[in-house]
Amino acid sequence: MCDYYFEDLNPGDKFTSPSFTLTAQDLIEFAQKYDPQPFHLDREAAEATHFGALVAPGFQTAALSWALAIKTGVFRKSALAGLGVEGLKWPKPVRAGDTLTCRFEVLETRVSSSRPGTGVAVSRFDLVNQNGDLVFTMRMTQLLRCREAPAVSPGQFGAR
Amino acid sequence: MCDYYFEDLNPGDKFTSPSFTLTAQDLIEFAQKYDPQPFHLDREAAEATHFGALVAPGFQTAALSWALAIKTGVFRKSALAGLGVEGLKWPKPVRAGDTLTCRFEVLETRVSSSRPGTGVAVSRFDLVNQNGDLVFTMRMTQLLRCREAPAVSPGQFGAR
Repeated sequence: MCDYYFEDLNPGDKFTSPSFTLTAQDLIEFAQKYDPQPFHLDREAAEATHFGALVAPGFQTAALSWALAIKTGVFRKSALAGLGVEGLKWPKPVRAGDTLTCRFEVLETRVSSSRPGTGVAVSRFDLVNQNGDLVFTMRMTQLLRCREAPAVSPGQFGAR
Repeated sequence: MCDYYFEDLNPGDKFTSPSFTLTAQDLIEFAQKYDPQPFHLDREAAEATHFGALVAPGFQTAALSWALAIKTGVFRKSALAGLGVEGLKWPKPVRAGDTLTCRFEVLETRVSSSRPGTGVAVSRFDLVNQNGDLVFTMRMTQLLRCREAPAVSPGQFGAR
């Protein structure tokens, strides 16, 4: 079942994404564009740093968590916009070759009073590696479409 | 002056990054890997959505803010690890072709009691577009190296 709308999500609902193995190439390509620091750029340079090995950029880890959450299909029809994210933490580093899975849980839901046909959900997204270690966590507040929603005009969420 | 260490940063210090123009190709490439939703994937699909045009993925905007902040050189020698990020918000969408600049301000600093030779800084990072509109903001807590720091062992920050 992938046709989730706001009404289908309730506090306590939990989902688990498919898994994804991060390659050194994925990691280095992201770092070259978005986080060109030695411990993200190449194996040898990383070995000489305090991390001792190549580690994934923090925002790549965050983006991957969301990419994996999308693969569940829960947000395919429901997602309208991200309203905010809090509490990003990286308890352990992500290494090249790690196999990552995103688990997320709905914490709060409320119908939007200002935007008819939409609701707001707050969910916690946890990324775990192949050993079950938590490597990243965040809480995201999302604007979601209701099942019986009036048409949303283009540009209505220009200012989110 | 680019050789900043923890001691060189004080609450109230402000920095402005170079600017960067986000192309549609940059945006779509990121979305294909990390946020494959119609309003991020291609112009025509985006026009049919509530956004009315292609918009940058939220985590691309976050990653770009950090990428631009790095270009100031402030974190070249000082950055050890990101301890956490709070308060991510996207007040306006980022469009393909937007020219973006990151402004950041140090909010708090404290010497680390648990990790000799390091300090903790909290800074607010704001991303603005070519019209001066705020398109993204976040507060990042960072572990920074002190100028007179003992050598940091590889793996010491394995668990951040």
